[in-house]
Amino acid sequence: MTEMTETTPGWLSPEELESARERMPILYVDAVPVRLDEAGVVTHVGLLLRIGGDGAVSRALVSGRVLLHERVRDALMRHLEKDLGPTALPQVPASPQPFTIAEYFPSPGVTPYHDPRQHAVSMAYVVPVTGDCRPRQDALDLVWFTPREASSPMVQQEMTGGQGVLLKQALAHVGCLF
Amino acid sequence: MTEMTETTPGWLSPEELESARERMPILYVDAVPVRLDEAGVVTHVGLLLRIGGDGAVSRALVSGRVLLHERVRDALMRHLEKDLGPTALPQVPASPQPFTIAEYFPSPGVTPYHDPRQHAVSMAYVVPVTGDCRPRQDALDLVWFTPREASSPMVQQEMTGGQGVLLKQALAHVGCLF
Amino acid sequence: MTEMTETTPGWLSPEELESARERMPILYVDAVPVRLDEAGVVTHVGLLLRIGGDGAVSRALVSGRVLLHERVRDALMRHLEKDLGPTALPQVPASPQPFTIAEYFPSPGVTPYHDPRQHAVSMAYVVPVTGDCRPRQDALDLVWFTPREASSPMVQQEMTGGQGVLLKQALAHVGCLF
Amino acid sequence: MTEMTETTPGWLSPEELESARERMPILYVDAVPVRLDEAGVVTHVGLLLRIGGDGAVSRALVSGRVLLHERVRDALMRHLEKDLGPTALPQVPASPQPFTIAEYFPSPGVTPYHDPRQHAVSMAYVVPVTGDCRPRQDALDLVWFTPREASSPMVQQEMTGGQGVLLKQALAHVGCLF
Repeated sequence: MTEMTETTPGWLSPEELESARERMPILYVDAVPVRLDEAGVVTHVGLLLRIGGDGAVSRALVSGRVLLHERVRDALMRHLEKDLGPTALPQVPASPQPFTIAEYFPSPGVTPYHDPRQHAVSMAYVVPVTGDCRPRQDALDLVWFTPREASSPMVQQEMTGGQGVLLKQALAHVGCLF
Repeated sequence: MTEMTETTPGWLSPEELESARERMPILYVDAVPVRLDEAGVVTHVGLLLRIGGDGAVSRALVSGRVLLHERVRDALMRHLEKDLGPTALPQVPASPQPFTIAEYFPSPGVTPYHDPRQHAVSMAYVVPVTGDCRPRQDALDLVWFTPREASSPMVQQEMTGGQGVLLKQALAHVGCLF
Repeated sequence: MTEMTETTPGWLSPEELESARERMPILYVDAVPVRLDEAGVVTHVGLLLRIGGDGAVSRALVSGRVLLHERVRDALMRHLEKDLGPTALPQVPASPQPFTIAEYFPSPGVTPYHDPRQHAVSMAYVVPVTGDCRPRQDALDLVWFTPREASSPMVQQEMTGGQGVLLKQALAHVGCLF
Repeated sequence: MTEMTETTPGWLSPEELESARERMPILYVDAVPVRLDEAGVVTHVGLLLRIGGDGAVSRALVSGRVLLHERVRDALMRHLEKDLGPTALPQVPASPQPFTIAEYFPSPGVTPYHDPRQHAVSMAYVVPVTGDCRPRQDALDLVWFTPREASSPMVQQEMTGGQGVLLKQALAHVGCLF
């Protein structure tokens, strides 16, 4: 697995990132962690419980930047390990084809996705995880929902920036949006 | 896993299948067994070594019919277990979307795929396998090839009915056709 | 365009089809007709207004069987012409990869899709149409809905057999499920 | 259609782009222009004839950056119009899902794609064009090849940076790699 971190010399410092965010779209990945039954059917979707800068509680997908000289699949692995812990055993898909792309614009309404900090373009993947998940960093917890719960208004309204829409797209892609 | 077999009462007898083959397209699945590295990159593709009715040796994908009242993912599991043995641990994809469909026509040239016995339409999937493969039934052996070997003329010419083309499509889908 | 029809000699008679329906999964296609803006964004989805055998009004996708010796893309063209008329100018996709497959089972609940007559497996495609649509046969009308209308409970409850779910999957695939 | 150009104030100047290229992956799109027959089968692939900085002649896909605040589909439209002229009538796909992503690394061998100037991640799309193509800017000509010609060694060796591989992946995706 890659040893890259976002603070490794050679990548953007916080100030440089701030500057770049004003100039170019930033490349992201979004991962939807899922549990499968033995026939491959999605039984549960994992959502991170986060506390935003304003203290608001929200649920989120695994998400983050792709670094310079980092393969997209290594970025997926890095963010999954960062958010789910080292024993989650994520199965990054063999195909690099994302199930969709999510274009987060700083102005709401251009697309269903919104990020006030930046214009980010994210390639989104469904990632089965078979191991034990132990959220780290800024996530308080990882909660597993059934597909029906995950697309319910209650969960949807706890997701921000359009990630609720992205989650429904993932559920549709795996045939579990009812 | 499904308990269905092709000889269970209620499904077509050999004579009835023969008759149906003359009337309707038959629904098939094709599976391309692969080994992945820890980042999800395909390192090897598994091909069955078969002996045809005419004694000719050929290499083949895992392939077979979908039965009445059988889900496509259960058909995939059944054929993978039949061809790779009970300890192969195939990971049938979460998404029901095939990477392509292969239309086998009895007349050569309509599509790249050809089956003299019938008009079959096959949904094709790439399936990672992590366990121990022990080919059964009419397969002599399962041989693992690197993506480069699998798309080489030598291996391609040992595949029949257009399965060499289907294999190259699978490799392209996982980003390993060079 | 193909000259095949479902009554051409060589294909199943109604009685033979009835018999086959009891023995094998039947191969279908589903098409979701859409209008696009100049940048390719889906602005409208077309739904057929049908009257069922019991007199109930319902909305439906373009749907039907694949015939013996017929390519899937020719089956799509045939059903689109049958349901939308000869001047609809459907743009059948270049890629044979369906956005999903819908498995209609005679028993409800196995999958989200249900067909009391038969076990049908349908490959589903989004098809832009640029021409003038004039529904024929058993369809009373073709009505264009915005993506938001099409996924609303009011439209969803007028669709049967799980086609409302399939429509939402199509909208998710084109990034228009909100 | 978007009025953005790469020299509009607010986007990166050449010097700033040079600097950014050293820090972050740059977001790109690749488009494979195709001609379709009436059933949607790819009959021809369009390749640009270019002269590189070193005077070498090469064949290339339509390719370029995604700008700040530009949707991916608008970037596709902009580059297609720039390279094929204003009367090409490209049909940007309804689905934002690329058929693959191409990761161009400055160091050869990390992936099949290579760009000595930068780390670029490109979302790749097959785009039918129905109009009259008139290449502009640095392209000398646009030449249409059959799928068989496009995947031949002669054409493949005229493509650089791994675009020959990307072209074969596109052909595989549309079922035309033989």
